[in-house]
Amino acid sequence: MRNIKLTIEYDGARYNGWQKLGDTENTIQSKLEKVLSEMTGRKIEVIASGRTDSGVHALAQIVNFKTNINMSTKEIRRYCNQYLPKDIVVKGIEEVDERFHARYNAKSKKYLYRIRIGAIPTAFNRKYTYYVPNYLDIEAMQKAGSYLLGEHDFKAFSSVKSSKKSTSREIFEMDITKEENELHLLFHGNGFLHNMVRIMVGTLIEIGEGKRTPESIKDIFASKTRENAGVTAPAQGLFLYEVFYD
Amino acid sequence: MRNIKLTIEYDGARYNGWQKLGDTENTIQSKLEKVLSEMTGRKIEVIASGRTDSGVHALAQIVNFKTNINMSTKEIRRYCNQYLPKDIVVKGIEEVDERFHARYNAKSKKYLYRIRIGAIPTAFNRKYTYYVPNYLDIEAMQKAGSYLLGEHDFKAFSSVKSSKKSTSREIFEMDITKEENELHLLFHGNGFLHNMVRIMVGTLIEIGEGKRTPESIKDIFASKTRENAGVTAPAQGLFLYEVFYD
Repeated sequence: MRNIKLTIEYDGARYNGWQKLGDTENTIQSKLEKVLSEMTGRKIEVIASGRTDSGVHALAQIVNFKTNINMSTKEIRRYCNQYLPKDIVVKGIEEVDERFHARYNAKSKKYLYRIRIGAIPTAFNRKYTYYVPNYLDIEAMQKAGSYLLGEHDFKAFSSVKSSKKSTSREIFEMDITKEENELHLLFHGNGFLHNMVRIMVGTLIEIGEGKRTPESIKDIFASKTRENAGVTAPAQGLFLYEVFYD
Repeated sequence: MRNIKLTIEYDGARYNGWQKLGDTENTIQSKLEKVLSEMTGRKIEVIASGRTDSGVHALAQIVNFKTNINMSTKEIRRYCNQYLPKDIVVKGIEEVDERFHARYNAKSKKYLYRIRIGAIPTAFNRKYTYYVPNYLDIEAMQKAGSYLLGEHDFKAFSSVKSSKKSTSREIFEMDITKEENELHLLFHGNGFLHNMVRIMVGTLIEIGEGKRTPESIKDIFASKTRENAGVTAPAQGLFLYEVFYD
């Protein structure tokens, strides 16, 4: 069987996430599987690097699927982009080793979170940024970001209920940059728990607003209690930015 | 009476334009008038620099209205931005001379048209750009743009049916610049007929695709016949960019 790897960009605004239990229609996965199944004449199941929640976007989600179809990768990409909804686009395609698995082989991921700042909001981008009208102390946020770096138990920064699996993760990189009227928060780590990026962002915003100190990050880690971290920032500012493999 | 001038940004994607005969609900004008009428307790009618069609956006539409309300301009702006839909934003506000009229006093206007180019579309911006997958010869488009400059009878470049009013207009500036994966077409003129920018853009695209020569612009002008110009480019790429007053 051929193993095809796709790089997919999607605007998550009108979908119930990458995959949702019980929802076999309005998810990005089901839209993609429908087109691939029609193309091949067989039921195709795709494997993604991970799920994204309702309203979350992707600039480069990685997906793979197996097929015996006799089409070039270029033809497959053209077919997909012709029949997929316009807010889901196959950006890249390559044939990979049959052992490649988009989820198991993912070594690390980057997420971007976009915050719109400034006294006046914009009429555009409300589905792609989170507008924070309050003044944000970027230096305090950057200092707090440095405390997130390294390996920690991120239980307090997740909505994981069960304690059976490890909640330890490592963050390699945490950058906050100002781009015109936006703050861009970039997180690169070996894995992310459910809602982890959005809870880190919600906490960093509260620090930027002066409601918490940068050092409070340490106490949140130590407590391992979700309630001690900040609110979960809304989905629309979050983008799966890049997935890294060996 | 106080005369208040507003600078308004809006995402036209889900509206039936600035104003639509018979539609008293889903237009940008009616959304704005509703909020201002609730604010003042009186029926407010606003005057805009001009209408925009369904799906067309504005970065700086200019509007004025009269009121006796005892609120500062800053308070009025805050009230509007609190109660307007999030895709309509009051960016600027100032109190102006009572003789100021947003339509009659407008001396010239700038429009921006955004074309998405490249072999692969993007999942984002489909409501804010027009995607043209074909190769576009930008130099040919720029040459054609230079023939649009100056004063001409733009009848062939409009969907104006009646011949009672003058269809002569002057274009001062026509720039085409490449910004990453987009072409930005900027038109500055003393006035624009209905659909004029979109028909000029549709014609320029056909020239970029090699279906027409830059010099064909002269023949289109001479013919004064709509059918000789190119197609009307879709609304979603068009932005009212700036309105100039004395």
